[in-house]
Amino acid sequence: MSVTTAKGFRAAGVAAGLKSTGAPDLALVLNDGPNDAAAAVFTSNRCKANPVLWSERAIADGRLRSVVLNSGGANCYTGAEGFQITHATAEEVARLSGLSPLDVLVCSTGLIGLGLSKEKMLAGVADATAKLRTEGGPDAAEAIRTTDTVAKQAAITSPGGWSIGGMAKGAGMLAPALATMLVVITTDAQVEPSALDSALRAATRVTFDRLDSDGCQSTNDTVVLLSSGASGVTPDLIEFAAAVTEVCRDLALQLLADAEGADHEIAIEVRGAATEDDALEVGRSVARSNLFKAAIFGQDPNWGRILASVGTTRATFDPADLDVALNGVWVCRKSTPAQAPEGIDLSGRAVSVTIDLKSGPETATVWTNDLTHAYVHENSAYSS
Amino acid sequence: MSVTTAKGFRAAGVAAGLKSTGAPDLALVLNDGPNDAAAAVFTSNRCKANPVLWSERAIADGRLRSVVLNSGGANCYTGAEGFQITHATAEEVARLSGLSPLDVLVCSTGLIGLGLSKEKMLAGVADATAKLRTEGGPDAAEAIRTTDTVAKQAAITSPGGWSIGGMAKGAGMLAPALATMLVVITTDAQVEPSALDSALRAATRVTFDRLDSDGCQSTNDTVVLLSSGASGVTPDLIEFAAAVTEVCRDLALQLLADAEGADHEIAIEVRGAATEDDALEVGRSVARSNLFKAAIFGQDPNWGRILASVGTTRATFDPADLDVALNGVWVCRKSTPAQAPEGIDLSGRAVSVTIDLKSGPETATVWTNDLTHAYVHENSAYSS
Repeated sequence: MSVTTAKGFRAAGVAAGLKSTGAPDLALVLNDGPNDAAAAVFTSNRCKANPVLWSERAIADGRLRSVVLNSGGANCYTGAEGFQITHATAEEVARLSGLSPLDVLVCSTGLIGLGLSKEKMLAGVADATAKLRTEGGPDAAEAIRTTDTVAKQAAITSPGGWSIGGMAKGAGMLAPALATMLVVITTDAQVEPSALDSALRAATRVTFDRLDSDGCQSTNDTVVLLSSGASGVTPDLIEFAAAVTEVCRDLALQLLADAEGADHEIAIEVRGAATEDDALEVGRSVARSNLFKAAIFGQDPNWGRILASVGTTRATFDPADLDVALNGVWVCRKSTPAQAPEGIDLSGRAVSVTIDLKSGPETATVWTNDLTHAYVHENSAYSS
Repeated sequence: MSVTTAKGFRAAGVAAGLKSTGAPDLALVLNDGPNDAAAAVFTSNRCKANPVLWSERAIADGRLRSVVLNSGGANCYTGAEGFQITHATAEEVARLSGLSPLDVLVCSTGLIGLGLSKEKMLAGVADATAKLRTEGGPDAAEAIRTTDTVAKQAAITSPGGWSIGGMAKGAGMLAPALATMLVVITTDAQVEPSALDSALRAATRVTFDRLDSDGCQSTNDTVVLLSSGASGVTPDLIEFAAAVTEVCRDLALQLLADAEGADHEIAIEVRGAATEDDALEVGRSVARSNLFKAAIFGQDPNWGRILASVGTTRATFDPADLDVALNGVWVCRKSTPAQAPEGIDLSGRAVSVTIDLKSGPETATVWTNDLTHAYVHENSAYSS
């Protein structure tokens, strides 16, 4: 259940000394082929980190052989020197594995505005290359952790004879995102770059893109999907896309469950929307309400804060005809108090909010976390 | 220095029993004339409270004689019965003071989705009417407090012989807003409704509209300006508008300083913008970054979180050429680390952030607060 579940991949995770703690901080994933098709999506933040600027070029031809990832520094707003370090890292991976530098995707995570040590990066690459193995997936997943309390991995094996495996770090979404989200997904199915790209975009649209832990968008978010073709099987593309979505959803919910300082995982389902965009806009607005998120932390069924957020959107709805449920209890019907909220038990980690806009057939679910003392502590007491 | 500083106004604040604490919770301001010109602006939230729905009608003719305000319940999402309570309140004020109901603006603040007691409201109106006096401004300011730790009042007297006085409660902005912001401003200058409206909109645009304490927009926000004309003086309109802006700015900064749980007041100045809208969009995006706000609480000069927010906007700028200063120290020049941030002292309440987009001549300042344990506590431990 890792990035080396799929055949044709080797991986490694090593301590390169980028983290002051001495914990593992550099991961390498190598596609041994026979294929080298790939697809990737990146943060929509206009302030992109150096590795993102590099990786956008590397993926342009739909071909990749390797992904190198480091924690311990985002390499963002580090100037021309920062870009040179990314470039040199890709060149070193390529040199040691007999690839072209543009076959190498680079991902970094950590503090923005902090320079990385080129010497440590290159030494780490050499160490990781020496340690690449087909059981190395879990080591790689370990090395990309920053504030993650656990490594996140997922895999699916199709009865058709192919597999998909993946790893993730961070907690958040592509746009916006809490801390940097890095995801590497591998498959031994034989799939062309364009089909990989379609499957990956369809999957991230309904998974990582609907995770909004704290409304803050990262400069480094990257999700990459690599195909080795080592199974020799060309999959049914619809089945393949569904499996990619399932792996992405699994990893996304692992990120949600491990979000910094969170006490609750909150699923906000918006029903009855005129368009899916309306449903998403409403869900995201509620997901970004600090007042609502603090209320859930306090186990307070304060549905007025939900409606106040709905009112800030441009979605189609009648303000006098909205229904809201908390954990299945319809506390508001026709914009008027309905079932008593007092009995709602918000002590469990999972909380569901349902908002019915009564304006159409569309629906969408956005996931978020509550706003807790631990969130404030983690993000005020430490630089990240 | 209150809403009764200007001649021609009486006010009162009483305990109507709407708050369980028994604290004052109903305020009344009466304009004795001779004039009754007025202007008002309301929340841009589409989910408007019943008193806002009423007050939008009341102000339509540019004439008001009275403002009645209650704390202890927002009267929002309380259905048809809630609107009837607002209506009955205006009728009772009108009956007791010999006015038309549509001469009465109604403002409510408190929990959304909670019904108000009509009996207590009407009894409170009678009590307040009996207690109206020309020295009653401070009592009124006291009665509109909710989580405010102090009453907020301001006044200006012009050498020209006219005055402006005001009171405010809440902490936030018109769009969005933290908790409900209610502001009543009075003047004895002789000013027609259209000029009052122009002056008020110009003032709120650069004051309350640029306050973004926690990104949450209220359903009840109201700012009203009443002219009694009792000074007999027709002011220079430019001087008058400047004075209204000064009173609004004074009250806005009092709201900022008393925002729920805040440890710091943060002024985010965006320079070098192509348009004022660009400057505002960038300032607001930084003001809504929980990661940035938590860093300031932790006295951590984490400027990477500022640039990550800038990147989420559509403003015109070159991501590779941004400058950022914290408390006047230019920690980032040309999107690259510049002066060392370590020496920056963020222990004082006032923090300044300067962002130079280097893309034009426009500038704007947005004010916000930090994200603190006390904010989470106030908004999770109590319903509001």
